[in-house]
Amino acid sequence: MNKFLGYTCSICGTEYSCTQELYTCPKDGGNLDVVLDLATIKRKYEQADITSREENYLWKYLPLLPVFDPGYEGTPFRMAGGTPVYSPRRLKEELGLRDLWVKDEGKNPTGSFKDRASAVVIARAKELKSEIVVTASTGNAGAALAGLATAVDQKAVIFAPKNAPPAKVAQLLVFNAEVILVDGNYDAAFDLSVEAANEFGWYCRNTGFNPFTVEGKKTAAFEIWEDIIIKKNLDDQPLSIFISVGDGNIISGIHKGFKDLLSLGWINVMPRIFGVQSEGSAAIANAFKKDSEEIIPVKANTIADSISVDLPRDGVRAIRAAKQTDGAYVVVKDQQILQAVSQLGKAGIFAEPAGATAYAGLVSASEAGMISPEDPVLVVNTGSGLKDIKAAMMAVKDAPIIEPSMSALKKYMDKSVK
Amino acid sequence: MNKFLGYTCSICGTEYSCTQELYTCPKDGGNLDVVLDLATIKRKYEQADITSREENYLWKYLPLLPVFDPGYEGTPFRMAGGTPVYSPRRLKEELGLRDLWVKDEGKNPTGSFKDRASAVVIARAKELKSEIVVTASTGNAGAALAGLATAVDQKAVIFAPKNAPPAKVAQLLVFNAEVILVDGNYDAAFDLSVEAANEFGWYCRNTGFNPFTVEGKKTAAFEIWEDIIIKKNLDDQPLSIFISVGDGNIISGIHKGFKDLLSLGWINVMPRIFGVQSEGSAAIANAFKKDSEEIIPVKANTIADSISVDLPRDGVRAIRAAKQTDGAYVVVKDQQILQAVSQLGKAGIFAEPAGATAYAGLVSASEAGMISPEDPVLVVNTGSGLKDIKAAMMAVKDAPIIEPSMSALKKYMDKSVK
Repeated sequence: MNKFLGYTCSICGTEYSCTQELYTCPKDGGNLDVVLDLATIKRKYEQADITSREENYLWKYLPLLPVFDPGYEGTPFRMAGGTPVYSPRRLKEELGLRDLWVKDEGKNPTGSFKDRASAVVIARAKELKSEIVVTASTGNAGAALAGLATAVDQKAVIFAPKNAPPAKVAQLLVFNAEVILVDGNYDAAFDLSVEAANEFGWYCRNTGFNPFTVEGKKTAAFEIWEDIIIKKNLDDQPLSIFISVGDGNIISGIHKGFKDLLSLGWINVMPRIFGVQSEGSAAIANAFKKDSEEIIPVKANTIADSISVDLPRDGVRAIRAAKQTDGAYVVVKDQQILQAVSQLGKAGIFAEPAGATAYAGLVSASEAGMISPEDPVLVVNTGSGLKDIKAAMMAVKDAPIIEPSMSALKKYMDKSVK
Repeated sequence: MNKFLGYTCSICGTEYSCTQELYTCPKDGGNLDVVLDLATIKRKYEQADITSREENYLWKYLPLLPVFDPGYEGTPFRMAGGTPVYSPRRLKEELGLRDLWVKDEGKNPTGSFKDRASAVVIARAKELKSEIVVTASTGNAGAALAGLATAVDQKAVIFAPKNAPPAKVAQLLVFNAEVILVDGNYDAAFDLSVEAANEFGWYCRNTGFNPFTVEGKKTAAFEIWEDIIIKKNLDDQPLSIFISVGDGNIISGIHKGFKDLLSLGWINVMPRIFGVQSEGSAAIANAFKKDSEEIIPVKANTIADSISVDLPRDGVRAIRAAKQTDGAYVVVKDQQILQAVSQLGKAGIFAEPAGATAYAGLVSASEAGMISPEDPVLVVNTGSGLKDIKAAMMAVKDAPIIEPSMSALKKYMDKSVK
């Protein structure tokens, strides 16, 4: 069954057939929405046909994805998604909420939410028989593409700016990617990756460019639906979802997932989606605040490097994700982000700054009265804290040093151990 | 039902009652084996009663653990274990094996195998109503104790040598532990943690000291049993398991798990257990080679820091794990370990050096003819590669730098892209 009908431009609404291999709209460069044959899916599947499928990972939702079964059982590629949801009691009490969940995307195969997009893009690349998948990335998207591609013997080329942190580049190389450092910034790497894809027939994964990334990312919405909305009986009360926003592609993906579920009649109410940006990288939040869809680039500067973006490439859909769901955008300072790293850490959840940003946004929204105690809330941590140990070091105080003796220990404890 | 009967010293065989709170044997300092009431367990449970339990994590095996149900659903503490098993086709072919699996312990809540031990030790601490759990550790064990303890509001104190890497200390602090740096080496931190535990009534998690760590670690054996031995129908053929060895506690735990299963009659043949040590930290392998149980300390020096140990504190049981199962010890060089990081990376599995050591051992054993093509093999990766990015940087070559233009790209590709 071919579920993939074609594309619609999110800006001008032009429709394109599934036989065209497109990235963005040829007319205006708008992001393309993948159009699924939801009518047929609805005829063919009941809700329970999906939730009872035995697979534990994102491929459980294959019937709702625009790709065929790619196979590759027993590989990290097949084990993207299926991330745990915690219910941290102490944080819930601190915030005075009745229900709080944290979905930990750091548990994906390469440690970030980006694995979801890479998995579906690689499945698409295999269908297109592309010899090479390519992306521009210095961070999580690159690691996700490299790690999942090599797991299924798909060759990956990754363009990164030459000043990319060597530690991040090392991870790409361990995952067997052909890494090419470009003597320029991220935009130069992005442009070269697109040119190379066009010239050589490579398949380009770039975020906010390839329409299939959102299709992968929407699987997080499906998991939230199954693990929280169904199991906790939130049939009629909207769940408030907090998610950090950089280029806007993840929030667009989550929105898309819930739109699919609403179209299928499998949810009654749309969750409220809250985007959280760092003050130093707030192009989308700025536009939202002005009630505009015009994204004005910023000079991004934030400790949360995974969401540090000058010109978000999926900004329009990201604005709509909040606007159309009665959500909002929240802006937080780097100091609040570091505090959130520490707060999540107290619940045993180790988040990178970009992941903790969502929690910082919840704290801020809660203080501002945007969230009431009765609102059920889910926060998405988008990446593992092990991805950015330097930031963790900034989030904590130094440990004391003592002589290795009981007398020194007792002296220290008298002063400070609670 | 109290399943915990008491302890037996692994050296002198003295039996102790479960009412005594013991760490090592009061007579000779030997490691204590926890004695379970296997007869009652066997009467009460069929194999299927265990495998059909709904929980996905290590607490699935609660009926075989010497603790009561600790609760804390929805926390990282409750989500230790349950790690994925990959079947990397390319590696299998490279080694000429018919069956190869890699169990990825890097997917545990804090990124290493040590979470299994910490979970069960914390459950025990809760039963003992200990206000504080304490350990000496600079690495994975400390992070595991800190992360899982804070998740269930259990206070943790961690002693580390003052020259511990600041990045590792930061993780402990993010996890809300009271970290005390000791002006001395690991042994000084170890001794002080034991003294403090005795003096203040804290519960001490130290590896190779607390008998319950092995009980947590044995749950990996139960998962291997369920996911591989049962599902792949290895009823009569021994699975060969490769595991890196530092202080010897993990290999002892895996051995204990299979001994439990054999006693219960739920496996017919014992897997063969192969310990792998780095040449620079091979105290246990040295003794095994001499067919001795006397562990002579070394001056450990290896890139695989999680298994860099001068005096292994669980050496005797570690030797027996290989000896009693028709396994062996394999010693590998740091260069082989770095190669293994890269080889696993090609399958999309990112391992820290100590984790990759097990795979290096398999390569070496395979070349030496210790493993034949028909032997089904499982390699345990004990920790996430994100734990040690510096080592990853040593495992790969530098990436090229080019001008951001198609002409520069083509020129580079003509020279080198395959």
